[in-house]
Amino acid sequence: MKEINIGILGYGTVGAATDKLIRQNAPQITARTGVKINVRAVADVSPKVKHPRLTRNAYDVIKDPEISVIVEAIGGINPALNYVLAAIKAGKDVVTSNKEMIALYGNKIREEAARNGVSVRFEAAVGGGIPILGPLSENLAANNITEIFGIVNGTTNYILSKMSWEGGEFKEALAEAQKKGYAEANPKKDIEGYDASYKAAILASVAFSAKIDWHKVYFEGISKITQEDICYAEEIGYVIKLLAIAKKVNGEIEVRVHPTLVPEGHALSYVTGPMNAIYVRGDAVGELMFYGQGAGGMATASAVVGDILAIANPKSSALGGQNPKVKAVKIKSISEITSQYYIRLTVPDKPGVLAGISKAFASENVSIAAVMQKETIGKNATIVIVTHEAKEGNLQKAISRIKKLPVVKEVSNVIRVGL
Amino acid sequence: MKEINIGILGYGTVGAATDKLIRQNAPQITARTGVKINVRAVADVSPKVKHPRLTRNAYDVIKDPEISVIVEAIGGINPALNYVLAAIKAGKDVVTSNKEMIALYGNKIREEAARNGVSVRFEAAVGGGIPILGPLSENLAANNITEIFGIVNGTTNYILSKMSWEGGEFKEALAEAQKKGYAEANPKKDIEGYDASYKAAILASVAFSAKIDWHKVYFEGISKITQEDICYAEEIGYVIKLLAIAKKVNGEIEVRVHPTLVPEGHALSYVTGPMNAIYVRGDAVGELMFYGQGAGGMATASAVVGDILAIANPKSSALGGQNPKVKAVKIKSISEITSQYYIRLTVPDKPGVLAGISKAFASENVSIAAVMQKETIGKNATIVIVTHEAKEGNLQKAISRIKKLPVVKEVSNVIRVGL
Repeated sequence: MKEINIGILGYGTVGAATDKLIRQNAPQITARTGVKINVRAVADVSPKVKHPRLTRNAYDVIKDPEISVIVEAIGGINPALNYVLAAIKAGKDVVTSNKEMIALYGNKIREEAARNGVSVRFEAAVGGGIPILGPLSENLAANNITEIFGIVNGTTNYILSKMSWEGGEFKEALAEAQKKGYAEANPKKDIEGYDASYKAAILASVAFSAKIDWHKVYFEGISKITQEDICYAEEIGYVIKLLAIAKKVNGEIEVRVHPTLVPEGHALSYVTGPMNAIYVRGDAVGELMFYGQGAGGMATASAVVGDILAIANPKSSALGGQNPKVKAVKIKSISEITSQYYIRLTVPDKPGVLAGISKAFASENVSIAAVMQKETIGKNATIVIVTHEAKEGNLQKAISRIKKLPVVKEVSNVIRVGL
Repeated sequence: MKEINIGILGYGTVGAATDKLIRQNAPQITARTGVKINVRAVADVSPKVKHPRLTRNAYDVIKDPEISVIVEAIGGINPALNYVLAAIKAGKDVVTSNKEMIALYGNKIREEAARNGVSVRFEAAVGGGIPILGPLSENLAANNITEIFGIVNGTTNYILSKMSWEGGEFKEALAEAQKKGYAEANPKKDIEGYDASYKAAILASVAFSAKIDWHKVYFEGISKITQEDICYAEEIGYVIKLLAIAKKVNGEIEVRVHPTLVPEGHALSYVTGPMNAIYVRGDAVGELMFYGQGAGGMATASAVVGDILAIANPKSSALGGQNPKVKAVKIKSISEITSQYYIRLTVPDKPGVLAGISKAFASENVSIAAVMQKETIGKNATIVIVTHEAKEGNLQKAISRIKKLPVVKEVSNVIRVGL
């Protein structure tokens, strides 16, 4: 087992969730990766923060010789950038969720990291817990990525979805988003497209291995979108989404964020509420989409801790085929699972049939959720039954009973229902 | 720059595509990862295969001291398994796309790899080019994965989609799939669920870090699904999909493959044709979905080469923030992009309005795809215009002209259309 000591700068939503996740899943993390993560110190200036290893001075953490990885979870430029640069100069690897800092100062941070031979990872900066920067730079490294675009801001996607589902104007939907915690009290960075523009710049820089000047990224928010626009778009077969778009066109790069009419039926049109999804087009892999929660403390912490483990364990031994420590497990027999079931029966078209069938199900504790009597062909009728959740073993016993009923010609199909 | 010499066993679809992708994208691969991949040798027994570095004897490749990574692209158990075990014993790292071999002999291969201190990677064995095993074992390593399920066989998804879209029975849809190259001449492994069961076992083993005995995996194919079932399922709000399902339930594991009624509206219900999608539920990250092409030479090669690069470059330097070699790029100004546009105008309700507007567009080379004249409120009417693809600069000039028209009260909104 390998131990790694980390320090967390900023104990807000992301910092606290990172600490919590490391504690909560410590046994699984060690079992899967062979790494034990110790949170050696936490720095935060807020008098409200309580933590057994708290300091008010970030430099206490940065300079601690026991600590090898600094997690920056303060957000914004000041003082986060100075702390990160100081950590790099002190020879620490850095993990950050700070999209604004990476978008604006990623080039400077990259140069400083190269000079000091340390890693800076920021999977959490785009798409919350959705693995996107790792896959782009690792699994997809053989591709010439030509396009990457998607819904990278949950606040605006929630607002647009709500306007589309329920009518109402932007202001009402924003108020609702604030009530639900999807929008901040000062929502400017989300609704005016700043947040998405940071993510667009980061996606472009990783997908195209390019230095992107954020100041050249065009962005627009959603505050001008009206209910009228949403309705007219729908009439012509579109939904309105705030997209971050990066494309390589004839060797030039486009990076932009704006509301976009997305054709109904495109995978992104189904991405609603606060969810995020990122579409990638590569010359070998074709089209890919990565979908998930784009925000939230624990989802973001999932990416942060993933990055810490990648630093601790550069030659990953976690792949099933490589980890010699995987345990044998018992696999449930199919008769032990539970599911709902769809059953299609062929029966003679005469009275009393359903009574016998119902009794067979009931005697095996399978309860019926819905019955449809379908058309009669010749002397035969079709009955379709959907059960409530039942144990597969019981269902199979009920089916055996039903097969023996004189009123049943055939059990024509049995298909499991639901996920 | 780091050079890595590889040998490819099997020069069929996947082997040849891997060779092609390495040659085709060599400059980008080296620029992004600092690695140059050399294909030192290719082994194939087919007299049809031509290659400048071809041998008929796989052991020539396995024993070549210049080669450090063996790509196994033969498929099936014999002779692939013996070659892979021999390569491991010879101290070579192995990359394979062979789902059957990993599902049935993954435990043995894992033990042998651990004993010899080599890596075995098999991202291509599940979901073609979709990054799933890497993200599961790396980015998501902090999560307790509770469920992983999805559409992992393109042949059966194509057949079920076709039956659902166009009616017709299983046999006709299968014939069509064979004609289109989505199903093999002998389709048994796909349609009877073998292929999906291999992938289910691999997904479960990686997601749960568990030894999975493939013989305990329950599987059913789709040959029993009739048009009647598809119609009845639709009537009650479901689509039928062949799902691979792995769940952790009270410390026990379920792994199974069977046709499943998936609620319309679930993200998986929109995955049609030969596409694949894998859903993951983790305790920190929540719900994720990974979507893309599940098969095809180049998509599979994307995953194979990704694995080769991961072996060559264990401490990945590809992340934008870490790679010091990224180049500055010019970002196109927004006026240089092209798009379709939606324009909403408020105009007085009188004749001749549209003529002036059309002329303004035409004079800037923006052509109109559709016009809708909407309801009149008081003295004002709304006109919605959708343009054909136009240069943003021209569109903006046209809008300036239109704003100055006496017949236009207001340009109420301009939104870009399409992806």
